[in-house]
Amino acid sequence: MEEAMELLSREARELSLGSQVERVAAPVSPLRFLRDFVMPGKPCIVTGGIQHWSALRKWSNDYLRAALGDQQVSVHFTPDGRADSIVDETLMFVSAHVQSMPFAQALEAVLGKRSSSNVAYLQQQNDCLRTEYSRLIDDVEADIPWATQALGSLPEAVNLWIGNENSVTSFHKDHYENLYAVVAGEKHFTLLPPVDVHRLYIRDYPAASYAQQEDERKLVMRSDRPRRMVPWASVDPECRHQDKHKFPRYFSSGGGEPFHCTVGAGEILYLPSMWFHHVTQRPDSGGRTIAINFWYDMAFDIRYAYFNFLESCVNKKTKNTTIE
Amino acid sequence: MEEAMELLSREARELSLGSQVERVAAPVSPLRFLRDFVMPGKPCIVTGGIQHWSALRKWSNDYLRAALGDQQVSVHFTPDGRADSIVDETLMFVSAHVQSMPFAQALEAVLGKRSSSNVAYLQQQNDCLRTEYSRLIDDVEADIPWATQALGSLPEAVNLWIGNENSVTSFHKDHYENLYAVVAGEKHFTLLPPVDVHRLYIRDYPAASYAQQEDERKLVMRSDRPRRMVPWASVDPECRHQDKHKFPRYFSSGGGEPFHCTVGAGEILYLPSMWFHHVTQRPDSGGRTIAINFWYDMAFDIRYAYFNFLESCVNKKTKNTTIE
Repeated sequence: MEEAMELLSREARELSLGSQVERVAAPVSPLRFLRDFVMPGKPCIVTGGIQHWSALRKWSNDYLRAALGDQQVSVHFTPDGRADSIVDETLMFVSAHVQSMPFAQALEAVLGKRSSSNVAYLQQQNDCLRTEYSRLIDDVEADIPWATQALGSLPEAVNLWIGNENSVTSFHKDHYENLYAVVAGEKHFTLLPPVDVHRLYIRDYPAASYAQQEDERKLVMRSDRPRRMVPWASVDPECRHQDKHKFPRYFSSGGGEPFHCTVGAGEILYLPSMWFHHVTQRPDSGGRTIAINFWYDMAFDIRYAYFNFLESCVNKKTKNTTIE
Repeated sequence: MEEAMELLSREARELSLGSQVERVAAPVSPLRFLRDFVMPGKPCIVTGGIQHWSALRKWSNDYLRAALGDQQVSVHFTPDGRADSIVDETLMFVSAHVQSMPFAQALEAVLGKRSSSNVAYLQQQNDCLRTEYSRLIDDVEADIPWATQALGSLPEAVNLWIGNENSVTSFHKDHYENLYAVVAGEKHFTLLPPVDVHRLYIRDYPAASYAQQEDERKLVMRSDRPRRMVPWASVDPECRHQDKHKFPRYFSSGGGEPFHCTVGAGEILYLPSMWFHHVTQRPDSGGRTIAINFWYDMAFDIRYAYFNFLESCVNKKTKNTTIE
């Protein structure tokens, strides 16, 4: 079975995915986007994809403060920038402490990162651009027109992300077609296709969340009540050297290498549904990385059914072997 | 593993394939065709798809004789209409006896079927419309325009088929996207999606061909020399009742039923690449079934890699169990 999984991973790369994320220049025709990227489930970066957005020129910190000022926004706080990730010492899946506060104060938490003990990330994956940040909506487009035409529907959710270099998003997948546009700074993606699910050692971890103790800034980790388990990738691609031997299918696969790409301001990453992604970022001279992602409904078709079949093979294998 | 395969088969149907072949009216937009049918690998019948072809009105037997007359064409002869199929008694994979003859004589072999001991099928899957039958080319379109736009290339091959009700095509799959247009009579398709490969009990059979003995009309079966094995579906959906117990995953699957559809004159079946199909036909009042199929290059992408993975699981299973 191991051999068949490695062959699948290799064939997917050799036949259509290649080993790098292709860059294509905007405009992209809907037919080409659908045929060459969505259908094969192949990521690409569309250069110049959002150059026409006024956000690219307007969104200084002063402009954002003036536009949003007292608007309440959701801020995700963590001690180390790692939300929704496995904390090594406890082997728990830990979510951020989410707090609502006026935008001006939230932005300071991102910019004043060095003086603060906690890392702030302005984000909420609930269509927040069109709710909390609706005052900014005229500075961007409501959708990515060629993607909307190709996929046959408007975005299901549009999310804004403002953070700094301390925020890291751990390996996970989403059940959406994702158009990820960077407005300021840059994002670094480490990607694995769905056929590489066996490389990530997905296991059930007990869920926990960070909480703020009264009158204290320090965050503490608390197990969720009632207890619940979350299946999550065990692999952290930046993990300390001594952990690598635990995850040979990721770190010494000899094939099945992850895809790496950097998405700069003005560019859009097409991240196909079900691709695993790990994200880090670098801020612009204003100290922020700003991105907007468009989630479009994915097709739950034969590829999804095939993925479930593969995952059941991986799980069966995992249950029959000791991994560590 | 059996359970996982059945789940895959069920999920593919529940999520996107349904249980029937959808009919859509021409014209079909290239984007819709690509998104709703090619991407999920879902067959459809396009009604009115070739109503504008003059072939539909012109192709009487007299017209065809006048147009083609002495043109040499390839005719496939079999004793019972079954070419490229498993002959029960011998468990061999037997190909037709192929003979080249003037069209007028070939057409008589199809029409005079009852007085002949052998079944004749005018066909050659080598782009024969544009070679042997090029005199007819102005009566049809050179491609299916919306398919060409969607798939991003012209057809790789265009084949003409003229036969009668005795010709049957056994379960097989092609590595092409297939647009199958019926000009006269009707075609009956029995279809299984690629995820149902385990239902067809694909096994290696020794190859043979029919040959004509000198001065005799009777065809005899001869093993190919050098010997070669051909992997082929064991299931004949019309098999005699006593054979059904051999193939429970086809005949008593309780789910994973085959798709049945009839394609009439003027209609086009979109048969997605890698779908297994078994075909019978009924002639028009002129005694012929006439069809033209357009083979477009398929995308060898992640779906193809997934299929290979599934097939390796099926083969592993098959090797470990006795099926009969």
